[in-house]
Amino acid sequence: MYELGVVYRNIQRADRAAADALAHFGSATVHEAMGRVGLLKPYMRPIYPGAQVSGTAVTVLLQPGDNWMLHVAAEQIRPGDVVVATVTADCTDGYFGDLLATSFKAQGARALVIDAGVRDVRTLHEMGFPVWSKAISAKGCIKATPGSVNIPIVCAGMLVTPGDVIVADDDGIVCVPAARAAQTLEAAQKREANETGKREIFAGGTLGLDYYKMREGLAKAGLRYID
Amino acid sequence: MYELGVVYRNIQRADRAAADALAHFGSATVHEAMGRVGLLKPYMRPIYPGAQVSGTAVTVLLQPGDNWMLHVAAEQIRPGDVVVATVTADCTDGYFGDLLATSFKAQGARALVIDAGVRDVRTLHEMGFPVWSKAISAKGCIKATPGSVNIPIVCAGMLVTPGDVIVADDDGIVCVPAARAAQTLEAAQKREANETGKREIFAGGTLGLDYYKMREGLAKAGLRYID
Amino acid sequence: MYELGVVYRNIQRADRAAADALAHFGSATVHEAMGRVGLLKPYMRPIYPGAQVSGTAVTVLLQPGDNWMLHVAAEQIRPGDVVVATVTADCTDGYFGDLLATSFKAQGARALVIDAGVRDVRTLHEMGFPVWSKAISAKGCIKATPGSVNIPIVCAGMLVTPGDVIVADDDGIVCVPAARAAQTLEAAQKREANETGKREIFAGGTLGLDYYKMREGLAKAGLRYID
Amino acid sequence: MYELGVVYRNIQRADRAAADALAHFGSATVHEAMGRVGLLKPYMRPIYPGAQVSGTAVTVLLQPGDNWMLHVAAEQIRPGDVVVATVTADCTDGYFGDLLATSFKAQGARALVIDAGVRDVRTLHEMGFPVWSKAISAKGCIKATPGSVNIPIVCAGMLVTPGDVIVADDDGIVCVPAARAAQTLEAAQKREANETGKREIFAGGTLGLDYYKMREGLAKAGLRYID
Amino acid sequence: MYELGVVYRNIQRADRAAADALAHFGSATVHEAMGRVGLLKPYMRPIYPGAQVSGTAVTVLLQPGDNWMLHVAAEQIRPGDVVVATVTADCTDGYFGDLLATSFKAQGARALVIDAGVRDVRTLHEMGFPVWSKAISAKGCIKATPGSVNIPIVCAGMLVTPGDVIVADDDGIVCVPAARAAQTLEAAQKREANETGKREIFAGGTLGLDYYKMREGLAKAGLRYID
Amino acid sequence: MYELGVVYRNIQRADRAAADALAHFGSATVHEAMGRVGLLKPYMRPIYPGAQVSGTAVTVLLQPGDNWMLHVAAEQIRPGDVVVATVTADCTDGYFGDLLATSFKAQGARALVIDAGVRDVRTLHEMGFPVWSKAISAKGCIKATPGSVNIPIVCAGMLVTPGDVIVADDDGIVCVPAARAAQTLEAAQKREANETGKREIFAGGTLGLDYYKMREGLAKAGLRYID
Repeated sequence: MYELGVVYRNIQRADRAAADALAHFGSATVHEAMGRVGLLKPYMRPIYPGAQVSGTAVTVLLQPGDNWMLHVAAEQIRPGDVVVATVTADCTDGYFGDLLATSFKAQGARALVIDAGVRDVRTLHEMGFPVWSKAISAKGCIKATPGSVNIPIVCAGMLVTPGDVIVADDDGIVCVPAARAAQTLEAAQKREANETGKREIFAGGTLGLDYYKMREGLAKAGLRYID
Repeated sequence: MYELGVVYRNIQRADRAAADALAHFGSATVHEAMGRVGLLKPYMRPIYPGAQVSGTAVTVLLQPGDNWMLHVAAEQIRPGDVVVATVTADCTDGYFGDLLATSFKAQGARALVIDAGVRDVRTLHEMGFPVWSKAISAKGCIKATPGSVNIPIVCAGMLVTPGDVIVADDDGIVCVPAARAAQTLEAAQKREANETGKREIFAGGTLGLDYYKMREGLAKAGLRYID
Repeated sequence: MYELGVVYRNIQRADRAAADALAHFGSATVHEAMGRVGLLKPYMRPIYPGAQVSGTAVTVLLQPGDNWMLHVAAEQIRPGDVVVATVTADCTDGYFGDLLATSFKAQGARALVIDAGVRDVRTLHEMGFPVWSKAISAKGCIKATPGSVNIPIVCAGMLVTPGDVIVADDDGIVCVPAARAAQTLEAAQKREANETGKREIFAGGTLGLDYYKMREGLAKAGLRYID
Repeated sequence: MYELGVVYRNIQRADRAAADALAHFGSATVHEAMGRVGLLKPYMRPIYPGAQVSGTAVTVLLQPGDNWMLHVAAEQIRPGDVVVATVTADCTDGYFGDLLATSFKAQGARALVIDAGVRDVRTLHEMGFPVWSKAISAKGCIKATPGSVNIPIVCAGMLVTPGDVIVADDDGIVCVPAARAAQTLEAAQKREANETGKREIFAGGTLGLDYYKMREGLAKAGLRYID
Repeated sequence: MYELGVVYRNIQRADRAAADALAHFGSATVHEAMGRVGLLKPYMRPIYPGAQVSGTAVTVLLQPGDNWMLHVAAEQIRPGDVVVATVTADCTDGYFGDLLATSFKAQGARALVIDAGVRDVRTLHEMGFPVWSKAISAKGCIKATPGSVNIPIVCAGMLVTPGDVIVADDDGIVCVPAARAAQTLEAAQKREANETGKREIFAGGTLGLDYYKMREGLAKAGLRYID
Repeated sequence: MYELGVVYRNIQRADRAAADALAHFGSATVHEAMGRVGLLKPYMRPIYPGAQVSGTAVTVLLQPGDNWMLHVAAEQIRPGDVVVATVTADCTDGYFGDLLATSFKAQGARALVIDAGVRDVRTLHEMGFPVWSKAISAKGCIKATPGSVNIPIVCAGMLVTPGDVIVADDDGIVCVPAARAAQTLEAAQKREANETGKREIFAGGTLGLDYYKMREGLAKAGLRYID
């Protein structure tokens, strides 16, 4: 249940270096490095392809059709943050456009993740301000009812606590708890090191069946080949 | 309820100058200028990004899996029109492809808005003929049962009367009644003038909270800050 | 009902020349040439626009959240194949990424059609390995339970038998039974020849109403014009 | 586009006798009698099975999450009316419960058709006040922003004009324009008379193929029987 | 790909005794007895609760909005059959009502499974003719284009071959290939025998953890208890 | 992000008396009493109508297609609990049937709320064990991978902490944080007292417009009446 009408000004952001470094690995590798948890639902899509970011979460709870709290949130943004917003009910309205994006960017935000709609998507693309959303809609919002900023929220099915690390790219969005940022970075680095050279091996025609020694396991699991 | 099997040849198109001028403002600004009504549902998406058009509506009522009336509609197109089509039942078939697009373009149509599917999307992109639809499908249509042309229709949840102005871009589609085109244009112009300079202000770091003087209203609404 | 835990090594692929030649016509024309059957459901979308391929189907039945059988399928790929995969239950997980794509490509696969999710989509685009899927998700898979390779499967609502020809582009995906590949190619060629010159005719302003002599049929069907 | 903030007090209701008599035939027969137009989308479902009603439409345009106008509409209800409500954006909130139902019933309303959510469904069932809706939700509404009463609205994809006849049962909801109520009733009566005895004929084992003399048409259409 | 315009008159029905006996076990047990394959997608729902049937499949391929082939199918029904129907494109129209149900029942059909809509649902309930469908809709059908009867079809994601056994109840629908009916029956009987007494054991307070001896496996899998 | 593989044995349940007393008020009143927060998404539906319960939450995190943790959860149930379960990915499988229900009931559970599928729904109805779920499916589960019990989970979009009060009926499901159970009960009681007599007033024909003195507010908000 959400606490309404509050703004927490002091949040414990994840370690900066880890939060910044995770972008490089992308959502798929970070999700694996986390032990396969933390992924937001895949209906969340980037408004343009190619962006890959990570940052610390400033969270926003919005009311249906009302984007007042995005203005409140702007003041809480610190350089390196990613704003993560959700609504108290399903809504596809366009909560965010080029003016808010300009403001967010000026405060140092790297991206917006919002379980609702956005607009001005062409301008946002031109500005290079990436957004992951569930909808695009020209319908703007009113400013009438407070929600909250920097409380724990559920966004696209995932619990996001202020200060968590958000990693987002074309494959999706992962939330890494602040306390696990460093160990997740380490796990991601190991995972990447482990991948090195694999692409060349497979490009050369070696099969995963042989490289990963899967044949015995498959036989044990009862797989039969029929000619 | 729809009148079936009729083609209205003489429709009252919105003022040409206003209909043409609205494209510049885009769907989000025009929707606001209308008093926040007139938007089609956001499941309607452009088949390629970047197009921004306005024009006067020629409406088409189609039967499921049957695109006969698009051929009938072609004859009713005048330069500056946008064809708006709907189906008597939910259908994702590909009603429209490169040949119809060539014909529509030759008659002066600027775009198609269709609450169904289209095909040949790569060619449509190459031709620069924009389409907003709810689906893309290779499945073509038969030509067996008449619908109607230039009757009032419901398209993606919105009533569209022949001659209304349609404004469409990456954010969505707005229908402006012909009788309100001029005043909507005026309101859009005022709104745009009002936006001038805001982007620079927010880019400079000024917060919307201060620029729009929201702090008092938020306090009155009970918003509390917690350190 | 699916046979589980089997890999058929010898499948009857469609005639190579026909299988290769169908790509040129695209899914919309091939679907018409087939007599308007064989289309997969339109929720299947390409992960990037512009690819147009055809090839012979290697089929894969997968378990939910488990991509083991894609590794098994890799060994069954022959140059010119398109891998077609389905899952025993609805699932949006990311079954396929850049390493499997590298392996599939090395074995000669032209594309993947999968009624589930994929990941590493930016890299897949860079590699030029086209995929049609119903979702994009960073969530990877385990390798624990066998499915099958090269059994008849239902993919996106369509029955696909190993060796069938798959034609896919931005408009969708069509499955042509191996035994009908040659006659479908012939029908597509006739259809294309028949289209020649039409675009110029419509670009010149001739209406489909006249070109296709539709006026009489419309009048018979009761269409009335009202001034 | 909707006119906001207005209540039309004098509406032209359909002929009372026809409006009342149509309930007997049910939505399927009335839809056929209308020439197969006028049906609301099938996602609209009754909150309990077994109700079958008809009446004259009082229309309501609601704002998202705001049911103020249902109170305004109550005053416009006359005995024999069916209230038909829609929202300016997709919304599943519970707009209507037992108190409003008591009020509506006291004013003479026979049912509610609402393209949104309702609540207190168990009590509504006990009261015998039927509702067709797209959702059931415990979430109540605020009373802050005016919509309109008795303007033409789009409800579940269909244009409903105040005074039209609404026919609803377990199969769905049909809107009959006021001007066509009498002729639709007559057509429904003929259709029903025409059905008399058919059930016994089919129960006796006679096939529709023979009764409707379909065999020749099927053969002409190319149907082949294979032993 | 479907063969259009054919009716196979002689189909190999599953063993009658096995086909009849499977109803008793219900879809959940039969699905397990099959090795957890054969289930139709769960969007298929009974139009009224409480029916539990099994029978041999007569399959029907329908065209969108066209129920002609249901009349053709009626003639192919033998006592103990369940009619299984699908459409060549997604469609929610009401393909089936009380007259067809009367005819189907007279020919000996036990139920209809249809990946589309039905109507007259109240009457069907009163008649006790069970239907599993994906929609309920008052919209009737035309009779214009042939499909096929007794070809293999895909219904709700599952391949159904004429003569297969269909088992349906409130939990869903399973398709048992004719050749596996007897062994599936045997497996279901064993499964049921194996369940005997379990309910009393669990009702007495014994935990599944102990009864199934799961504790060791859970500990091995790493489950930790925290006080 | 979820902690995997843990079972918390000691949870702080909400005050028993408050947890029990809230059932009487139902989800709609409790949601209002909470200040309009705490509601699970309305896609969650009861498997049979008429149940109305409240109790303290035992939470379960499940893996896709795997119901092992429901057996683990059974041991943690205390009389008066409601089990609330979610899955790490979208899944409609039937996680729960009559045997688990028997066990849950024997341990004192009052209901199950699960963001997935269930089966044996007819038997569950006969047993009087209410379930709220998003699907019904005959597809059973494996027991292979641990999740967790009694960690905070997101169920149907709402954060549920072990020990919270769950209130569920035909209108939906509300989660009341343990610490707010008593004050929510008090608010619900006041709200109910406040409703007393209203139904008679409205049944007598008094309008909400007058009873709630809405006319002035509506006029201020600009509502116009047109004769």
